[in-house]
Amino acid sequence: MITHGSFTIAPWSVTEERLDLDVLAQTESVFALSNGHIGLRANLDEGEPFGLPGTYLNAFYETRPLPYAEAGYGYPEDGQTVVNVTNGKIMRLLVDDEPFDVRYGTLLGHVRRLDLRAGTLAREVHWRSPAGREVKVRSVRLVSFVQRSVAAIRYEIEPQDGETRIVVQSELVANEPIPTQTKDPRAAAALRAPLCAEEHAADELRAVLVHRTQSSGLRMAAGMHHIIDGPPGTQTRTSSADDLGRLTISAEVESGETLTVTKFLAYAWSGQRSVPSVRDQVDAALASANRTGWDGLVAGQRAYLDDFWERADVELDGDDELQQAVRFALFHTLQAGARAEQRAIAAKGLTGSGYDGHVFWDTEAYVLPVLTYTAPHAVADALRWRHSTLDLAYDRARQLCLGGAAFPWRTIRGHECSAYWPAGAAAFHVGSGVAAAVGLYLDATEDEEFARETGLELLVATARLWRSLGHHDAHGAFHIDGVTGPDEYSAVADDNVYTNLMAARNLQAAAELAAHLHDEAAALGVDDEEIAQWRDAAAAVHIPYDEELGVHPQSAGFTRHQIWDFGDTPADRYPLLLHYPYFDLYRKQVVKQADLVLAIAMAGEHFSDQEKARDFEYYERLTVRDSSLSACIQAIVAAEVGHLQLAYDYFGEAALMDLADLEHNTRDGLHIASLAGSWLAVVAGFGGFRARNGEFSFDPRLPPHIERLAFRLVIRGRRVRVEVVPGEARYELLEGEPLRLRHVDTSFTLESGTAQRHGWTAPRPGPAPKQPRHREPSPRRPRGAG
Amino acid sequence: MITHGSFTIAPWSVTEERLDLDVLAQTESVFALSNGHIGLRANLDEGEPFGLPGTYLNAFYETRPLPYAEAGYGYPEDGQTVVNVTNGKIMRLLVDDEPFDVRYGTLLGHVRRLDLRAGTLAREVHWRSPAGREVKVRSVRLVSFVQRSVAAIRYEIEPQDGETRIVVQSELVANEPIPTQTKDPRAAAALRAPLCAEEHAADELRAVLVHRTQSSGLRMAAGMHHIIDGPPGTQTRTSSADDLGRLTISAEVESGETLTVTKFLAYAWSGQRSVPSVRDQVDAALASANRTGWDGLVAGQRAYLDDFWERADVELDGDDELQQAVRFALFHTLQAGARAEQRAIAAKGLTGSGYDGHVFWDTEAYVLPVLTYTAPHAVADALRWRHSTLDLAYDRARQLCLGGAAFPWRTIRGHECSAYWPAGAAAFHVGSGVAAAVGLYLDATEDEEFARETGLELLVATARLWRSLGHHDAHGAFHIDGVTGPDEYSAVADDNVYTNLMAARNLQAAAELAAHLHDEAAALGVDDEEIAQWRDAAAAVHIPYDEELGVHPQSAGFTRHQIWDFGDTPADRYPLLLHYPYFDLYRKQVVKQADLVLAIAMAGEHFSDQEKARDFEYYERLTVRDSSLSACIQAIVAAEVGHLQLAYDYFGEAALMDLADLEHNTRDGLHIASLAGSWLAVVAGFGGFRARNGEFSFDPRLPPHIERLAFRLVIRGRRVRVEVVPGEARYELLEGEPLRLRHVDTSFTLESGTAQRHGWTAPRPGPAPKQPRHREPSPRRPRGAG
Repeated sequence: MITHGSFTIAPWSVTEERLDLDVLAQTESVFALSNGHIGLRANLDEGEPFGLPGTYLNAFYETRPLPYAEAGYGYPEDGQTVVNVTNGKIMRLLVDDEPFDVRYGTLLGHVRRLDLRAGTLAREVHWRSPAGREVKVRSVRLVSFVQRSVAAIRYEIEPQDGETRIVVQSELVANEPIPTQTKDPRAAAALRAPLCAEEHAADELRAVLVHRTQSSGLRMAAGMHHIIDGPPGTQTRTSSADDLGRLTISAEVESGETLTVTKFLAYAWSGQRSVPSVRDQVDAALASANRTGWDGLVAGQRAYLDDFWERADVELDGDDELQQAVRFALFHTLQAGARAEQRAIAAKGLTGSGYDGHVFWDTEAYVLPVLTYTAPHAVADALRWRHSTLDLAYDRARQLCLGGAAFPWRTIRGHECSAYWPAGAAAFHVGSGVAAAVGLYLDATEDEEFARETGLELLVATARLWRSLGHHDAHGAFHIDGVTGPDEYSAVADDNVYTNLMAARNLQAAAELAAHLHDEAAALGVDDEEIAQWRDAAAAVHIPYDEELGVHPQSAGFTRHQIWDFGDTPADRYPLLLHYPYFDLYRKQVVKQADLVLAIAMAGEHFSDQEKARDFEYYERLTVRDSSLSACIQAIVAAEVGHLQLAYDYFGEAALMDLADLEHNTRDGLHIASLAGSWLAVVAGFGGFRARNGEFSFDPRLPPHIERLAFRLVIRGRRVRVEVVPGEARYELLEGEPLRLRHVDTSFTLESGTAQRHGWTAPRPGPAPKQPRHREPSPRRPRGAG
Repeated sequence: MITHGSFTIAPWSVTEERLDLDVLAQTESVFALSNGHIGLRANLDEGEPFGLPGTYLNAFYETRPLPYAEAGYGYPEDGQTVVNVTNGKIMRLLVDDEPFDVRYGTLLGHVRRLDLRAGTLAREVHWRSPAGREVKVRSVRLVSFVQRSVAAIRYEIEPQDGETRIVVQSELVANEPIPTQTKDPRAAAALRAPLCAEEHAADELRAVLVHRTQSSGLRMAAGMHHIIDGPPGTQTRTSSADDLGRLTISAEVESGETLTVTKFLAYAWSGQRSVPSVRDQVDAALASANRTGWDGLVAGQRAYLDDFWERADVELDGDDELQQAVRFALFHTLQAGARAEQRAIAAKGLTGSGYDGHVFWDTEAYVLPVLTYTAPHAVADALRWRHSTLDLAYDRARQLCLGGAAFPWRTIRGHECSAYWPAGAAAFHVGSGVAAAVGLYLDATEDEEFARETGLELLVATARLWRSLGHHDAHGAFHIDGVTGPDEYSAVADDNVYTNLMAARNLQAAAELAAHLHDEAAALGVDDEEIAQWRDAAAAVHIPYDEELGVHPQSAGFTRHQIWDFGDTPADRYPLLLHYPYFDLYRKQVVKQADLVLAIAMAGEHFSDQEKARDFEYYERLTVRDSSLSACIQAIVAAEVGHLQLAYDYFGEAALMDLADLEHNTRDGLHIASLAGSWLAVVAGFGGFRARNGEFSFDPRLPPHIERLAFRLVIRGRRVRVEVVPGEARYELLEGEPLRLRHVDTSFTLESGTAQRHGWTAPRPGPAPKQPRHREPSPRRPRGAG
């Protein structure tokens, strides 16, 4: 847990004023830089100490056999694990022969700052060596949003007391040792020395290493190039070996003088291309970065982010901490997806090796909805990645004796890597999540080309899965039996409400688009009979309801189960999955994460207001939030049913998931979906934003203490700004053609450059819901920047 | 599959007239000898060729880590695997320097015969060596029922054409190579060289090897002693090494002369005792065997079996093949359990390494009911073994957050070794099986000492498990949610009817015995309140019923599930578990093995006649019998509801499971529960025998073609013989005090030495039930000995 005070509250940056080695691994994640293509954990420049060294390339993984003590038909044989690749961040420093290491000598100052507008991580160090020599070190890092293969570091040393011998070793290090893993199944499988050297070269200020993984057969090249600005007499030497590229810079620097090293880093990787090809790609990227220069990269980075914030910024008056947190969240959501470009957006982005670097269903369900309205190009690319894995998903469905495509529960490349089928293969809602993301994107962009080339096949393939997975009973109702919904404390149940509603939406959307794109659908073998079957199944889908309790069971029979004995569960036995068997969790009423409540949030049109209120209250009593995917959804529905303080509590929790390390595993990487979810809490929760079938509606409300809330959306190419103050909402079209929106019950058309104001009244909820003992959210009080 | 004709049909023996190397592994299982303490597969004397070499000691196992790609709380960390121990069966033979090997030279004759009354395996070989020398070899083997640590072999060589140089090498071989295993999960984990040598010794005609397992730390000694009867000039030499003890016998033998080697084998093993202790135990056992002598061992063996057949024989007129099969089945059931003596009776007995040598629930559910009425001392011992593992079962229950004792799904020593919890930990009916076996045994023996010392705690510990596992709903009904019943094609379901009925019986039995043994129960912490809770839960147990279909769902919701597409399932995709994912099997109506039908067989008092008939017909359509535990139960209920030809078909299948290798895995060991089940099919099925609360009732009927059926039972110390002919049953008390029995609706008292006759009429069933395509039982036609 990162205590309050670790970071300074400010609107556009996150600053650590003092180095705290106890939370080093967490800050490596929090300060990680990425563009979705390359990711650098915020390891200290000098390489040590570290929490978890990490340099990641999207989709660069090693495979390993998945062992089973008792094997079964259709169990995946191989897993995929993200590789910590060649580390190019390392700048070792020697001050009068003394290695700079924060654990030795005296740290007179150590500040790190993540700048959310500049897209840089800056560090300022003032250090006195054990021998008494003082130096100031400044470094700034970026992973370029503009030149996606490039990262850069500017490293400056300024001696403080007279002429000082300075040596800087700028390195590329492959196969760094990784600390022993914990037993927590959510961490990654350890890979020892995953890279086999293929080629290395060094000349003048440049070095390149080429490696290949043993088993997955992926090839990568890492290169560095430097610009050195030092006093006369500064010398350099470059060398390379299998796992090491090194530029050594040696200088005598006076007080007041500075030695500045600018390091350009480039990565290239491929499963097919040759050694010369990836090596040359790196050289080319370095040449390009060198031409752009440090200042050019910095400027490009800011311009990219200015553009982003123009489209995406969220303003929050009355809680500076959450103002910071929600921008931090948006920044990392962007970093995860901005340049993924037909590779996956993983659960941790490229900030850590948690969950083996896998992508799960929450990318489509939580992350893409945010990007849909802030960076829609990234959504199209993320879905094109799914589309590119369809061959594997068709194979997997066939293996499971199903039709259509079965997307993997967890993967890097597209192969199913889940070794525990009740929470893997059985969780088919990954497919409807993909379909829903397609629907949302098409609705928000009207991107016909995407619909034809990518969206249609994704909808058809997933609809076919649902059709083969479900069946009609003797009365015609359509059931989906024996599947696992979002809540991981239940599994293999019949008629999960979320699953069924999302499957129905999937079937309906496929039917509509296939009817619309008749020829393209016919090319996929879709005919009118198949479309009719989809419509019929969607219309007949069974939604269980407990008449006696007046609530929806999460799945058939759920509300008849025994309620978990929360009174007898001590605080230190959460998360429950580490202390109780799945067996016991599955058969009782205890909810890890929003499931029925997620159904309300995602498919609210199927619930009356009264049902929403009752269901929410019922599931609040059962939900322990052992998953980071829960709080943001609870915030949305709490806001909808009028529990605004509670919504605010959950919003705070979602947004601070990593800044406060609420789940104690930020060390393994950030919770991108929870961070994205904090935007959902703002926009879908307090903004009451919903998009269905081309209608974009708002139903605004404000939590206590928040005096003003504003957010921006990109809808059908227009930029919209929505500002909510007590009793009033203001809608402004910043750019684009007129757009029809809806405020509560009123439809209106917004013209460019004009604003409209609409009044709103706060809802009147019933009594505050209760949560399980020890798992109530912390009541949120606003925190100011002071 | 062993084709018809591999074995000669005869009433008291199983004879293979010609060696068929294609079914060598199967015959090694079929001809295996065991007393429940030591087991010898029927490997050829000369060691090679073999299908699967096997020498097993009950409870002698090695542990191995169970790997999990995704670990979970409460998953067992270590598995246990039966060890192929030091092979003492080996008698290598050289004929004029040519090794005798059935694959070389010419086999002029090769007959093996398992004698079910003698308890011996005899072999007669007539072989012409590649060099043209003919010899006859006769061997006879036994594993002594009387001296449980002892096995013995008599080996005779008779040259056929003149003076022949004969060398016999009688050996003890440790760490024999084992052939590579198949991928079938039902086979054993391969262990390479599991034994570490600790001591070896050889002198004169004796050798002893002492070994220890690496990980489980069990110690074993194997010893051999010989008596040699050969022509003058016969020489011997004894030697030993770490993994080899050898006696070499060298002789020149004339035609008409015989070289006879008698080999006594002894084994001792322990987890605690020292090298000298187990070594000396073996020496002592050899001394004892030597004193008894070959003839004495043979005589003792026959006397033991005469006594057994007096108590247990089944006679069947009209189907010689099944007459043989049912005696073969009883013989192996006895072999598995006779001298297990507080060690487990494994699923394969000691006939093979299948299922890693583990014991499962079917020992109590299928095997002990047979032994209860034929060898009750073995039942008491088997249950004392369960009792001896209670400490582990209490620990396991605590680990699973449950009360009472959770017996393992599969184990050798008592630790849970199941790595797949949906078909392991979740299958809690292993506990009610133990309790039911206790109840049956107490009912059949009135063994008060056992009740006090063993039975009570077993009932209390299992009742406490059920009480903690189940819960009352808002209407007071008692539910057991999220468990796995007998059918392994369903899992983790609510209110499995078999589980609930057997749990209720368990709770009721515990309540009754605890009330009866008040002081002993109090010592276990049982008070009147707890007993009342058990009674209440038992009385309130919920039994789901499908009003619309008029049948019991196997578990809640089962009959609403989609029915498996049997029409689209080719014959070669059975067993389904090897071709379809659990996911798909679990969520559809497809039944691996009797489950609801088992409930009818075991707890028929809860079903009306009409319900039995309807339920049976319903589940026949769904049951694919991919488990060897199914046919015998289907036979019982088919007989009860009057489908006598079908009952006969299933009876044949159960009885011939291994003689015909119906499941293609007899090579890994015999299906002891199916063999035992063939007795259940006779006695509970055609005899209609039921025992409940001190009442022993019969409701006889005969299948077509069977003209006379007779069986014997031991009930409360009396020996009873029941003979059924068309229209009449004859009850005879062979020995003991008068006994009250029931025939259909008539109660009567049987006096010693007298018989009573009662008439019966054949039931009139409805139309014959249908089975899934490709899985109909073969319609049985009687086969005569000719």
